[in-house]
Amino acid sequence: MENRKNGLFISFEGIDGCGKTTQIELLKKYLDEKKYETIVTLEPGGCEIGKNLREILLFHKGYVSDIAEMFLYLADRAQHIQEIVLKNINEGRIVLCDRCIDSTVAYQGYGRKGNIEQINLLNKIATNGIEPDLTIVFDVDIETAQKRIGNTKDRMEKEGIEFHKRVREGYLELAKKYPKRIKVINSNQEIEKVFSDLKSIIDEII
Amino acid sequence: MENRKNGLFISFEGIDGCGKTTQIELLKKYLDEKKYETIVTLEPGGCEIGKNLREILLFHKGYVSDIAEMFLYLADRAQHIQEIVLKNINEGRIVLCDRCIDSTVAYQGYGRKGNIEQINLLNKIATNGIEPDLTIVFDVDIETAQKRIGNTKDRMEKEGIEFHKRVREGYLELAKKYPKRIKVINSNQEIEKVFSDLKSIIDEII
Repeated sequence: MENRKNGLFISFEGIDGCGKTTQIELLKKYLDEKKYETIVTLEPGGCEIGKNLREILLFHKGYVSDIAEMFLYLADRAQHIQEIVLKNINEGRIVLCDRCIDSTVAYQGYGRKGNIEQINLLNKIATNGIEPDLTIVFDVDIETAQKRIGNTKDRMEKEGIEFHKRVREGYLELAKKYPKRIKVINSNQEIEKVFSDLKSIIDEII
Repeated sequence: MENRKNGLFISFEGIDGCGKTTQIELLKKYLDEKKYETIVTLEPGGCEIGKNLREILLFHKGYVSDIAEMFLYLADRAQHIQEIVLKNINEGRIVLCDRCIDSTVAYQGYGRKGNIEQINLLNKIATNGIEPDLTIVFDVDIETAQKRIGNTKDRMEKEGIEFHKRVREGYLELAKKYPKRIKVINSNQEIEKVFSDLKSIIDEII
């Protein structure tokens, strides 16, 4: 990274309960120790208006239409990319982002059976074409993931097993389609082993 | 309307201060007296999650990116069309809607100089192709409109004179482009005269 004028944009993906958040924390610590300027952020909710949108997306009790849901994620993304991500990579930081474009393809596309080509176009509009330099998919089987989530589930987590199976398949399809950008880590393994796999990928690009 | 199985969807458009709200109230009373089942609704904010989005769109103090703003209007529209508009026209009511698709073209397209072809596509996605049966544009000159708004302005109303001039031009262009759907009423006139113009248009279609 020494020769890059700009920072680095890394996104973390996977079904709920895949262990993303734990791994991002471990990675942040690891990069801090190596003296990289790093920030951790997330979608939805990484920017001020995104916090309101996250409330609706994850905790709204009433009906939310699939299309409205998709546009809310895109609104959050458009604001977050411009307000947080771009600003920080332009100032030379490593941005670790919990979910980004691939979540919308996996959840609203594969999970809700939305139009994937359309979602790709909408993602491009929302991000102005900005993509993560690297995306890590933590792949875990549904049963393990469900156990990790426990009983306090948000609106997306409450979707059934079949939904999350489709989301997982979606991520694996995406990884096949964009092998240069997206790397898959077997997240059924112990936390330490997952992190060691993550470190070897990260060490290659920083 | 007697021969229609379904209700009617009428949207009302124009720059802030054009007198829409007053005219919608008068029309509602008029249709009530004629024993039509009529509901008045609005965008943004006509449905439950829309109320939160309206707060952000019109009263958020911080920065909102143009693209995020557009997606928020679209999220509100997608939910509103499905939850309120379709339901009511399917139950045979006349839906009077304060702002709809043309606002996004006029404000985010002409006003903010967004990509109009893209906005048309996004409107289609948000509405699933549903369009108002009739749209009334209340056309008023900027000075009159500004006087009517007074000093308590929301986020959109605070945009400058040039912005609102472009929005007004946008509406007039739209009316030229879709003369069958969109009718323009000179809203510089007295309230009674505007309403008499409105009635003659409405009387023809109910």
